[in-house]
Amino acid sequence: MYKNNTADELRLRWEKIHILMKEQGIDALLVATMSNLFYTSSKVFSGYAYFSINKPEPIFFVKRPVGLEGENVVYIRKVEDIINSIDKTSNIALELDTLPYGETLRYAKVFGDAQLVNGSQLLRVARSVKTDYELSQIRLSGEKHTASYAEFKKLYRPNMTDIEFSIEAERAMRKNGALGLFRIAGSSMEIFFGSVIVGENADNPSPYDFAMGGEGQNASLPVGANGTQLKEGSTMMVDLGGNFTGYMTDMTRTYGLGELSELAYKAHQVSCDICHKFEEMAKDGVAACDLYNMATEMAESAGLAQYFMGHKQKAGFVGHGVGIEINEIPVLAPRSRDILKNGMVIALEPKFVLPEIGAVGIENTYIITKDGVERVTNAPEEIINMY
Amino acid sequence: MYKNNTADELRLRWEKIHILMKEQGIDALLVATMSNLFYTSSKVFSGYAYFSINKPEPIFFVKRPVGLEGENVVYIRKVEDIINSIDKTSNIALELDTLPYGETLRYAKVFGDAQLVNGSQLLRVARSVKTDYELSQIRLSGEKHTASYAEFKKLYRPNMTDIEFSIEAERAMRKNGALGLFRIAGSSMEIFFGSVIVGENADNPSPYDFAMGGEGQNASLPVGANGTQLKEGSTMMVDLGGNFTGYMTDMTRTYGLGELSELAYKAHQVSCDICHKFEEMAKDGVAACDLYNMATEMAESAGLAQYFMGHKQKAGFVGHGVGIEINEIPVLAPRSRDILKNGMVIALEPKFVLPEIGAVGIENTYIITKDGVERVTNAPEEIINMY
Repeated sequence: MYKNNTADELRLRWEKIHILMKEQGIDALLVATMSNLFYTSSKVFSGYAYFSINKPEPIFFVKRPVGLEGENVVYIRKVEDIINSIDKTSNIALELDTLPYGETLRYAKVFGDAQLVNGSQLLRVARSVKTDYELSQIRLSGEKHTASYAEFKKLYRPNMTDIEFSIEAERAMRKNGALGLFRIAGSSMEIFFGSVIVGENADNPSPYDFAMGGEGQNASLPVGANGTQLKEGSTMMVDLGGNFTGYMTDMTRTYGLGELSELAYKAHQVSCDICHKFEEMAKDGVAACDLYNMATEMAESAGLAQYFMGHKQKAGFVGHGVGIEINEIPVLAPRSRDILKNGMVIALEPKFVLPEIGAVGIENTYIITKDGVERVTNAPEEIINMY
Repeated sequence: MYKNNTADELRLRWEKIHILMKEQGIDALLVATMSNLFYTSSKVFSGYAYFSINKPEPIFFVKRPVGLEGENVVYIRKVEDIINSIDKTSNIALELDTLPYGETLRYAKVFGDAQLVNGSQLLRVARSVKTDYELSQIRLSGEKHTASYAEFKKLYRPNMTDIEFSIEAERAMRKNGALGLFRIAGSSMEIFFGSVIVGENADNPSPYDFAMGGEGQNASLPVGANGTQLKEGSTMMVDLGGNFTGYMTDMTRTYGLGELSELAYKAHQVSCDICHKFEEMAKDGVAACDLYNMATEMAESAGLAQYFMGHKQKAGFVGHGVGIEINEIPVLAPRSRDILKNGMVIALEPKFVLPEIGAVGIENTYIITKDGVERVTNAPEEIINMY
């Protein structure tokens, strides 16, 4: 199933899951969704990872692909077959926040009268604090993400549209090793690769839980580029998802088409200042809501509250955890109870939408440490003039 | 919410849903997932479409974006708010095949003691027969898909890898208007744009329910290109998703690197022959399983059964419905009970995996009519020599 060094890495994750199971009185956990299967096995397969409180190693029940090997791999045809390999359990945790209702009932039935409990938050918490190996994958994504953004200025051609620029930027990302896939937990958001937003399109509100809007190319995917021409005096915000390793980094940079208004430079600087303040404040033990409040207060005292995190429609957060998926915990929001921990990874995106000009601001991904933060997205932060 | 001609189009869909509700004794249906919201409203929004058997038009309960207008649009903050706008119902259908368990319980609670029933299949059936407008969108995707594939030969460079080719092919698709997003119902499959598979990589089994495998670039996404060089004597199978309009077409073509073995040409021809036999047989009223059996029998009588639909691991179907998502009904599988209907859209993909050579075969998307089929993916079917 996996090589020896992978087994050591996975053991760290399994231990974390076991500790949380013990804390929450969970005797058994059946993992069934792709992202959590990848987290618990370092592989993606069709099947299940079964954790029992009595055993340090999970059993991997595999339907596909053929050919996986290992002591704890058991091939099954259907979920009901797992009953032959497990002991009776008093309760069973399933990923109730993401697992479909119909599937959940089928799985629950396999466990007879065991009490059904929600394992989603447990896995979310386990995944929120990354291992050293996971952090190395985040750093690697950050490096390639940064290298890709360094190529963007030379992709500019006069009279090009946001879609045309986006296509060239996606290609640059792919040539640097981007997998392309943008993994999102849950089903409330859809996006292709990320978004490139020019000028007034920034103020088109989105149906999704993203910080920025954009009309999109088609009614079926109303987010990001909509064919706006890159024209003098407007900004282009580039927010492409950095999935180079299976672990995502999130980075936004703003590009200017010629000279911009004073407001644009001012708001952009406030965004950078918020990031720098975050770099001073954030560390193990700090409350996520305090960081949210810091950001909104800085935007307010600069007199820019009306543009902060959207104009016609506002996002309710300024940052979010990232990892295998783009929307992990912690969430930097007003009522968040999350506390930062050593090893968490956070994307901070204090952005402003300026009507007629466009969006300005930056987004960086940070690893939280005991004493501070480590920035993993290191492209220059100032507005880059495309001319 | 939508313009007048859109309203006429949507009325056709709502009527279809009403007829199915009546047939199944469903009094109310709450639609909550993106693809079905797009189907029922021609928009993507965060919220719900509520169908009552007593009213011809649904109510759209919208959380985001701001600014949607229309008689039947009601803004809500949370799902519980809808209770103020609806009558008591004896039962409530929810999308139980895709809606998460936790959300389902929350929604069900809103409807008090109304009986919970599964609305997934109803919506799947409604969507399986496309309206004239939807067919026009499928045709348009097919045209752009075909135009993109016409550019692939000139993208070839000596010594390039499958990933390098894929990046250029994705760019060609995007420049022709592809939205990029590959919509899949359920959560058992993940993919970025589609797959490009060269040589022996074709025989790497996939964990997903796709016809073809491929190792992929990273363990987190084990499908498609894995860095294999396009080398003499091997094939490259290109299967990129054609989402140009919100409605997908599916097309596969095979490219040859120089002269191939006799087996490659023979198996490829059988794939084309199966498609041509399908074009003769398929029409309104034909059983999906009969088409599956025709395909497997033709592969068998050519002595190619061992390579058909995979070698180390086989797919259990030869074709599938397409539309807003890539995996719609009908399914062309041995035990499928689906019957083809006028207006259905089917992607047929009789493929062969030849060890050491690669994958061969084609995939076309067809509109089913009263008397036959209309092919909407019209790139040349023969193996195109890249040299």
